[in-house]
Amino acid sequence: MQQVDATPLSDEELQGLDAYWRAANYLSVGQIYLLANPLLKEPLRPEHIKPRLLGHWGTTPGLNLIYTHLNRVIRHGERELMYVIGPGHGGPAIVANSWLEGSWTATYPNTTLDEPGMARLFKQFSFPGGIPSHVAPEVPGSINEGGELGYSLSHAYGAAFDNPDLVVACVVGDGEAETGPLATSWHSNKFLDPRRDGAVLPILHLNGYKIANPTVLARIGDEELAELLRGYGHEPFLVQGSDPAKVHQSTAAALDKCFQRIDEIQLEARTATSAVPRQAWPMLVLRTPKGWTGPRTVDDLPVEDIWRSHQVPLSGVRTNDQHLHQLEDWLKSYRPEELFDETGRPVAEVLDLAPSPSLRMGTSPHANGGVLTRDLELPPVADYAVPVKAPGAEDGEPTKVFGTFLRDVFRANEQHRNFRLVGPDETESNRLSAVYETTAKAWNGAVLDTDEHLAADGRVMEILSEHTCQGWLEGYLLTGRHGLFSSYEAFVHIVDSMVNQHAKWLKTVNRLEWRRPVPSLNYLLTSHVWRQDHNGFSHQDPGFIDHVVNKKAEVVRVYLPPDTNTLLSTMDHCLRTRNYINVVVAGKQPQPNWLDWDAAALHCARGISVWDFASNDDGDPDVVLACAGDVPTLETMAAVDLLRERLPQLKIRVVNVVDLMRLQGATEHPHGLHDRDYDAIFPPGVPTIFAYHGYPWLIHRLTYRRNNHNDLHVRGYIEEGTTTTPFDMVVRNNLDRYHLAMDVIDRVPSLRSRAISARQYFADQRTRHHAYVTTHGEDLPEVRGWRWGQQG
Amino acid sequence: MQQVDATPLSDEELQGLDAYWRAANYLSVGQIYLLANPLLKEPLRPEHIKPRLLGHWGTTPGLNLIYTHLNRVIRHGERELMYVIGPGHGGPAIVANSWLEGSWTATYPNTTLDEPGMARLFKQFSFPGGIPSHVAPEVPGSINEGGELGYSLSHAYGAAFDNPDLVVACVVGDGEAETGPLATSWHSNKFLDPRRDGAVLPILHLNGYKIANPTVLARIGDEELAELLRGYGHEPFLVQGSDPAKVHQSTAAALDKCFQRIDEIQLEARTATSAVPRQAWPMLVLRTPKGWTGPRTVDDLPVEDIWRSHQVPLSGVRTNDQHLHQLEDWLKSYRPEELFDETGRPVAEVLDLAPSPSLRMGTSPHANGGVLTRDLELPPVADYAVPVKAPGAEDGEPTKVFGTFLRDVFRANEQHRNFRLVGPDETESNRLSAVYETTAKAWNGAVLDTDEHLAADGRVMEILSEHTCQGWLEGYLLTGRHGLFSSYEAFVHIVDSMVNQHAKWLKTVNRLEWRRPVPSLNYLLTSHVWRQDHNGFSHQDPGFIDHVVNKKAEVVRVYLPPDTNTLLSTMDHCLRTRNYINVVVAGKQPQPNWLDWDAAALHCARGISVWDFASNDDGDPDVVLACAGDVPTLETMAAVDLLRERLPQLKIRVVNVVDLMRLQGATEHPHGLHDRDYDAIFPPGVPTIFAYHGYPWLIHRLTYRRNNHNDLHVRGYIEEGTTTTPFDMVVRNNLDRYHLAMDVIDRVPSLRSRAISARQYFADQRTRHHAYVTTHGEDLPEVRGWRWGQQG
Repeated sequence: MQQVDATPLSDEELQGLDAYWRAANYLSVGQIYLLANPLLKEPLRPEHIKPRLLGHWGTTPGLNLIYTHLNRVIRHGERELMYVIGPGHGGPAIVANSWLEGSWTATYPNTTLDEPGMARLFKQFSFPGGIPSHVAPEVPGSINEGGELGYSLSHAYGAAFDNPDLVVACVVGDGEAETGPLATSWHSNKFLDPRRDGAVLPILHLNGYKIANPTVLARIGDEELAELLRGYGHEPFLVQGSDPAKVHQSTAAALDKCFQRIDEIQLEARTATSAVPRQAWPMLVLRTPKGWTGPRTVDDLPVEDIWRSHQVPLSGVRTNDQHLHQLEDWLKSYRPEELFDETGRPVAEVLDLAPSPSLRMGTSPHANGGVLTRDLELPPVADYAVPVKAPGAEDGEPTKVFGTFLRDVFRANEQHRNFRLVGPDETESNRLSAVYETTAKAWNGAVLDTDEHLAADGRVMEILSEHTCQGWLEGYLLTGRHGLFSSYEAFVHIVDSMVNQHAKWLKTVNRLEWRRPVPSLNYLLTSHVWRQDHNGFSHQDPGFIDHVVNKKAEVVRVYLPPDTNTLLSTMDHCLRTRNYINVVVAGKQPQPNWLDWDAAALHCARGISVWDFASNDDGDPDVVLACAGDVPTLETMAAVDLLRERLPQLKIRVVNVVDLMRLQGATEHPHGLHDRDYDAIFPPGVPTIFAYHGYPWLIHRLTYRRNNHNDLHVRGYIEEGTTTTPFDMVVRNNLDRYHLAMDVIDRVPSLRSRAISARQYFADQRTRHHAYVTTHGEDLPEVRGWRWGQQG
Repeated sequence: MQQVDATPLSDEELQGLDAYWRAANYLSVGQIYLLANPLLKEPLRPEHIKPRLLGHWGTTPGLNLIYTHLNRVIRHGERELMYVIGPGHGGPAIVANSWLEGSWTATYPNTTLDEPGMARLFKQFSFPGGIPSHVAPEVPGSINEGGELGYSLSHAYGAAFDNPDLVVACVVGDGEAETGPLATSWHSNKFLDPRRDGAVLPILHLNGYKIANPTVLARIGDEELAELLRGYGHEPFLVQGSDPAKVHQSTAAALDKCFQRIDEIQLEARTATSAVPRQAWPMLVLRTPKGWTGPRTVDDLPVEDIWRSHQVPLSGVRTNDQHLHQLEDWLKSYRPEELFDETGRPVAEVLDLAPSPSLRMGTSPHANGGVLTRDLELPPVADYAVPVKAPGAEDGEPTKVFGTFLRDVFRANEQHRNFRLVGPDETESNRLSAVYETTAKAWNGAVLDTDEHLAADGRVMEILSEHTCQGWLEGYLLTGRHGLFSSYEAFVHIVDSMVNQHAKWLKTVNRLEWRRPVPSLNYLLTSHVWRQDHNGFSHQDPGFIDHVVNKKAEVVRVYLPPDTNTLLSTMDHCLRTRNYINVVVAGKQPQPNWLDWDAAALHCARGISVWDFASNDDGDPDVVLACAGDVPTLETMAAVDLLRERLPQLKIRVVNVVDLMRLQGATEHPHGLHDRDYDAIFPPGVPTIFAYHGYPWLIHRLTYRRNNHNDLHVRGYIEEGTTTTPFDMVVRNNLDRYHLAMDVIDRVPSLRSRAISARQYFADQRTRHHAYVTTHGEDLPEVRGWRWGQQG
C-alpha cells in the first residue's frame, strides 16, 4: 500500500484547512452537548448541557477531515463532488459542515450563520422536534441514511452511473466494511463505464473500532489489507497518523493523487477509440484515531483511539464537575475565538474555504435528485397490448411482452441516459430479454467471444447480489433517475431490511418540502411462488408483500396483474410515479390472457372489478369468487367453469383484484375503497371465496374492518411445496380449482345438501391428480389442456 | 496463485478415481433425465425420459470431482470430513455420491445398490413425491440447502467450531461468491481457533458462469483474484484444466498440499505454549468448465464451458431425436458397463474407493447434528430471579440479569464446548456483559494491550455482519450444538431470508424420521423499537415477528416477556427446546419488575394470564386492557393507574401475554388457546384495548377467528418515530398511557358521557408532554418518576 507522506500544502493553506476542520469539530461537539452558550461566552454550566446526550463522536473528526479536504479538491478543480457517508451515525460532522459552508442555512433559513443560528443548530440535534442523530433525509447533501450499515458504496455507485462529470466520494467505515452488502459492493467497479459514468472514490476510514470491538480490517495488517483492496480492483493510498498537521499534508497529497488517477483513467477511456481494459481505480485508506482530538482519557480510562469514544465520551457532564470541565477544555481546544466572530459567524478565513455555492456538497442537486428528474419518455403502452379475442382463449407470456415495452422505454430514453434495469442474473430467465435488442448488460470485466450482450455502457445491471442491485438502484433513484428491479419473488426478502430503510426515507422526505419527489422504487417480482415447482421449497415465498405493507401506506403500492395486458398497464403506471415503493407480482410462464387492452386499462384504473364475462349473478350473487394474482385467477376461473358445469343454477360473481390496497379502508390507505363501493362488490352476508397469491392472512388483515369480513374465506400459500408440478403446488396449498369449488359448496348454505355429488366429484379429482402426478411426473391432461369458455 | 501441476497419482489410482467420477457423473445425468432403463440395457427411447426435465447440470461434474477426491483424502488419512456445497442446486452430484458410497441406501433402505435402486434413485429426483432438485434436508450429509445462495462458508465455519478433529470442505460457487453474505464470510477465519476448532477448506469453484452471465471472479484475472483471496486471509492453490487425467492429478496434489498445511497450522497451534499468530489457511481454486463432460454443443450452440449448461443442456429429448441420441451418447461416454455390473451394483473397483462407513461424508453424524446433541446443562434459573416485593415498585434490567444466567450457562457447559452466543458487536450494548466473567469474544486477529475480552477460544462471536452471525449459528446448531443470537430488533430483518430458509429446513426435517431434532434457533431481540428513541427512525422496526409468523406454526415461537423474571423463565425454556425458531423480544433498559419468580414462572407456563393484582373486575370486567411487550405493559399499567384514579368505579381486567401464539386458535398453532379458555380471558362483547409491542395488525391477524375480534382495539407501532425521548415514542404511536386511557373511555359505552372531563384531562396531558419535551429535551417528570401502586 502506498503510504502518502508528501507535503503539498503551504503553511497558510495548512492553517486554513486546520481552522476549517477545527470549526467543524467544534460545531460537532457543540451539537452533541450544548443546549445554550454556544460560543462559550460564559463559563460552561450544567444548564447549558442537554439533558440527554445522544450522538456519535468517534467517527466524526475523520468525517470532518475528509469533508474539509474534499472542499479543497472542489475549490482547486471546480469539480462536482458528492459525499456519501457510510458511518452516517456521525451525523454531527455532516450537519456541522453543511452549516459552515452555508448549505444548511440555504436549506433551513432560520438556522442562520450566527450565534442564534448556531444555538439552534446545536439544540436541534438529537432533540425532540429537531433532527435525528444520524445522517438522515433531513440533512442536505445526503442520499444515505446512516443508521443501518452496508449500503454506502452501492449507493455511491448508483449516484455515479450516468453522471460522467460527478465524482462520488464515499466513506466506508471499517465497521460497515464487515457487512455482507458492503463486502460485495466493492465489485461494483466491474460494472462502471469510465466513459459514460462518473467515478466513485472509496475512502476506507480505518479508525479501528466498532461499538465495543476492534474491526477486522484494522487488525489484519497493512499487507493483507492492501492485497484485499487490490483484489477488489483498487489502487489504495494510505494516509495515517494522529498529528493533525502531518495528516492534513498527507490527506491533501493523497487526494491529489487519487483525483489525478481518476482524471487519467477517464481521459484514457474517453479518448480511446475502443473499449479500454478495466483499470484499478484509486482509493484512500485513512487511519486516524477514533474520537481523534476528543478527551484522551475519561475517569482514568483511555477514550481516544479506542471504542469508548464511539458515542458520547463524557457522559456525566450535567452532574460531574470533572466531566464538565473536561468538556469545556475540549471545546476550547479548538480555539473557537479564532474561528467565529463575536456574532457567531464563521470568520472570513474559514468561510472562504467553502466551495462556491453551486459546487457545495451540501447542496448538490444530485443529492436532492428530484430537482434533476426528467419524466421518462414512455411509448404508448397500448401499442404493446396483445389482442384478446375471447377471455382465456389463448395463452400469453406477460413478462415477455412487457420486455418489448421495456426495450422501447430504453430506446425512447437513450439520449437521456436515465433508466436502468437491475436484477441478480435473471433478466433472461424472467423473459425480459427483448431489452437486449437495444441495450446490453453493463460489464467492465474481461469479455470472451462467446459472451452475449455484455458492454461497458449496458443499461441492464446484473450481479448475483440482491443487495448490490438494490443499493445501485436506490442510489440511482435518489439522484433523480428511473429504474426497475426484477427479481425472483422469494429472494427479494434478501433486501427486506434495505426496503425498510428506503420506505422510512420516503416517509420522511414526504414531510420535507425542500426534498423533491424522486422516481419510485419499482419491483417486478416474477418467477413467483406458484411457478417455482421446478426449483422447490426454498424458492417459494410470497411474504415480501406482507413485509412491505407494514410500511407507511403513503409510500406502499402492491399490484397483482393477472395477465399480459394488465401487467403492461400496471408497469406503465408505476414508471410514472414518484416516491412510492411499487411491488408488482407477475408470472413469466405462459398463462391465459383474460382482458383485451381496453378492458385491461379500465380494470387497472379501477384496481378491482367484477368480471362480468365470468359472472352470472345478475347483481344478486350466491357466492363471490375473488382472486388476486395470476395463478389464483386461473384457478378461480377454472373453479367457476367446474361450478357452472355441475351447478348451473348457482349465481356466481367473479371479482379480480389488481391493486391490492383497494381492499383496505379509504382511511387506511390512499387507494382504499370506500365502504359503500366495497360493499357493492362484496355484499355483506354473501360468502366470498378469495384465492390469493400470497399468505392468506394478509387478505384478512386488509379487510379487517370490512363489513363482509365474517363472510370471507381465503386460500393462499400455506408454506407447502417442494419440487413438483405446477398444479400440484396449488393442490398442496388448497388453492386448486377443485378445492375452491368445494369451498363454495361448503360456504353457500343453500348448496350444502344439494351438491353432495358435485363435492364428491371435486374431491375425487384431487385424488386422481395425486395418483397421476406421482406416477407420470406431470399434471393431468385436463388440467394442462384446460381452456376457459371451451367447456361443455 | 500457486498453480498445482504435480502428478502424485499412480496410473491405477488415477483410473480408479476417474471411474468413480464417471460413475457419479453417470448417476447425475441419469437423475436429471431417466424415468426408466437406468443402465441403458436397451436403446434409449422417449418413454424412458422424464416428462419434465428439472435439474442443474453445470456445476455437477465439478462437485462430483471434489467429492471423489475428498473420498481419497478421507481414505488416505482416516480423516473426519464434512462437505458443504454452496452450489447446492447441483443436487444430483451429492445424491449420486451418496448412493455410490452407500450412504443413501443406509438412510433410505428401499433405494438399494442395484438396478431397481438406481431406477428409484433416478425417478425420485425432482419428481412429485420424490426429492427436491437442490441439496435439501432430504439429502444425507448436508446442512446447507442449495436454493438460496450465500451461506455455505458461514455454515461451514459454524460446523467447524468446537469440532477440532473435523475438516469442513466447502465448495463456494463463483456465482454465490458475488453475494454479500458470502463475500464477508471469508473473514470467518479471524474468528476460528486453530487449537480448539476444526478447519474449513474453501474450494472456490470457478466454472465461470451463472444462469446467463459470466461471474465476476472468473473475469478479474488470476493475479487480482489471488490478491483478493490472500486479502481474505487464505493461501490459494489453483487447479485448472479440462483434461480429466490432468485435473485428477492436480486436484489430488493440491488437496494433499491443503491438508498438509491444515495439519501444520493445527499442529503448531496445538503444541505451542502460547497463542500463535493467525496463519493464512490453504484453499483451493478449481477452474474447470461448466457442464464439463456434457454435450459440447446443442443445436449448433456451444453448451459446455458456457452458461447454457447451467440447467438441462438437452431440453428436447422426448421429442427431438437428435437430442435423444446426444443424451444416449453422453451417458455412454461414461462407459457405464465398466462401472456397474449386470445387477446395477457399482463394481468393486468403484465401491472400494468409498471411505469406510463411519467416515463417509454422506453419513457424517455432524450433518445430522441431532444425533450428537447433548442437552445443555442449565443452572437452576430460579437462583437468578430478582426479588420483587411489590409489582412495579422497583426497576430491573432484564437483559443484564439474564446475562448472569448466560454467564453460568457458559460455565456449566465449559467442558462440553457446545454453546455459543453470536451477535453483531452488541453483547455489551445489549447488557449481557456478565458473560465476559467466564468467556471472551472469539478473535484471532491482532490484539492490543488496550483490548478487552478478546481470545482465540472465546465463545462469544461478534462480527458486524448479521448474515455471518446467523450463518455461523445455523451451522453450529445443525451440527448439534446450542446457541443464541442477540440482535438489535430492527436489524434482524437483515437475515429475514436466511430465517425463511432455516424455517423451511426445520419444517422439512420434521417429516424425515432419520433427521434427529437439533437445538432451536434462539433470538434475543433487544434494543427494540420503543427504546431506539436515541438512534431514531432507522432503528425502529418490530416487523421481524410478522415475518416469522408466516412460517409453519410448528416451527415458530414468539415471546414477549414483560420484565426480568419472565425473561429468565422464557430463555430457560427456549434453551431446552429443539427444532424451533424462538423469537424473544425484551428491552435492555431499566423498567419495572412486575412478577416475583413464582408468579413469573407460572405466568410464562401459562403464556397468557389475567394479572389479578392489577385488575378490579371481579370476574365481570367493563373493559380488558391487554398488553404484550415490556413497554406496552408499562404503558398499560400506567393507564390502569390513571383510570383507577379518575374513574374508580370502572371494572378493569389486565391481561398480559408472554407467549404471543397463545392468541391464535388451537387448530392453527400448537400453543393456541382453546376458544373456551380464550373467551374466559377475553369475554366476547367486552371491549379490549390491546397494547402491543409491534405492528398492531398482527394481533388482529392472530385473533381473527376469535369470538371477541369485533371488540378488540389494538395499539402498536405505526411507523412513527425519530430521535426523541422514550415517552415521545409511545405518544407518537398512540400507545401511551393517556391515549390508552382515552381509548378505554371511547370504547366503553357506559363511560362515554360520564367521563368527558377525564378524557379531556388525558388529552391535555399529551399536549403538555409535547410542549415539555420539545422545550426540555426529556420526558415529563411524572412520566419519568411514575411508579405503579404509589399513586394517590
